[in-house]
Amino acid sequence: MIKVIFFDLDDTVVDTTKLAEMARRNAIENMVRHGLPVDFDAAYHELMELISEYGSNFNRHFDYLLRRLDLPGNPKWIAAGVIAYHNTKFAYLRTVRGVRRVLLDLQRRGYRLGIITDGDPIKQWEKILRLELDAYFDEVFISDYMGVKKPHPKIFKKALRKMGVEADETLMVGDRLYSDIYGAKQVGMQTVWFKYGKYANRELEYLDYADFTVRSLEEVVEIVRGLNSEEREEGSD
Amino acid sequence: MIKVIFFDLDDTVVDTTKLAEMARRNAIENMVRHGLPVDFDAAYHELMELISEYGSNFNRHFDYLLRRLDLPGNPKWIAAGVIAYHNTKFAYLRTVRGVRRVLLDLQRRGYRLGIITDGDPIKQWEKILRLELDAYFDEVFISDYMGVKKPHPKIFKKALRKMGVEADETLMVGDRLYSDIYGAKQVGMQTVWFKYGKYANRELEYLDYADFTVRSLEEVVEIVRGLNSEEREEGSD
Repeated sequence: MIKVIFFDLDDTVVDTTKLAEMARRNAIENMVRHGLPVDFDAAYHELMELISEYGSNFNRHFDYLLRRLDLPGNPKWIAAGVIAYHNTKFAYLRTVRGVRRVLLDLQRRGYRLGIITDGDPIKQWEKILRLELDAYFDEVFISDYMGVKKPHPKIFKKALRKMGVEADETLMVGDRLYSDIYGAKQVGMQTVWFKYGKYANRELEYLDYADFTVRSLEEVVEIVRGLNSEEREEGSD
Repeated sequence: MIKVIFFDLDDTVVDTTKLAEMARRNAIENMVRHGLPVDFDAAYHELMELISEYGSNFNRHFDYLLRRLDLPGNPKWIAAGVIAYHNTKFAYLRTVRGVRRVLLDLQRRGYRLGIITDGDPIKQWEKILRLELDAYFDEVFISDYMGVKKPHPKIFKKALRKMGVEADETLMVGDRLYSDIYGAKQVGMQTVWFKYGKYANRELEYLDYADFTVRSLEEVVEIVRGLNSEEREEGSD
């Protein structure tokens, strides 16, 4: 009997990848507009390389971009990048299509909901609060707060303990086969792989750990109903 | 003959103090709304004390606020503070009343304009670019970039050198008697104290260094015209 459904945050509940790409493009465009003496494509390519090396939470992207381009540090160019990046992020932050309806539907049917995510705790809470998603979820578990990253079992076990359920009473929904699906399955949760965003065709070596694969979150509601009615039927045997 | 007019940035060109106060109040209000178990006045008082101890550019205000209130670190409360703070800053950033008209008027009359300011270079450029003030000024000098703070003569001398003028061909306009007025006078500039904002009644021991005192920036135009016509008259004697 499924009692709790856990969701990953980025590219499962919040449409993060599209937003980040748009924000980075606008940042470079604004830097060029304010005098950065490099063409858009060259600068954007360099930024993407930098992010893949230093990670997306590194907070000196634009500063390091100038170093990589052999340009002097110029606070005007950096400010132009920061402004466009923040404006885009604040204006275009969105949930994944259909997610609010699904969360509301699950809540109405009596399921408890949680988030299990990696990432900087303050930045993750910023997304949740800006989108007013906090009311949908009973608990939010952020792995950085525990000093681990998914698929480390510690974060999944903590979530089970805090919600007071056994692993087989839960479902984990996420876009990453390695972090979300392999991670959740390791502790015994049932798993739904949301084939979406930049990980839609990656980490396929972990595909076996997915009990279900969906391309739309609406399908999660059907999966939960299916699992629970199956069990009721078995119980009545 | 005055050729160049320098302006301080915060509370001379940009209305910073009012904005910061509004942003801090909204931040605390949003933290309380999201469950911070302290009343508004207590938390606001603690935040103001923290800022006076750690400075306004310290970037862990909300984090340290929780420590001071003997509360556990909670990324949700911090995110609530950060969101409200940023939203307020972006929505309510304003120039000081009348400043655009004055800058345009001075530019039309053939004067070159510059900014001489303390503060984090990227944050200062953010204010300038967000308000589209960059086109008014020929040069922006930010002291942190030179490792000093006003009234250190280094920043004023650099500004004179870069603009290619003698000190007595310039006027410095600022709200702080110590940093702006005493600093500029030390290198031989003429000085206009803008009696405005939280420094309107402070550092009065440096009042003697102000050649002029104004309560509105419009008066700067008259002062410059007066100084230059006086000199022309003397020249024709």
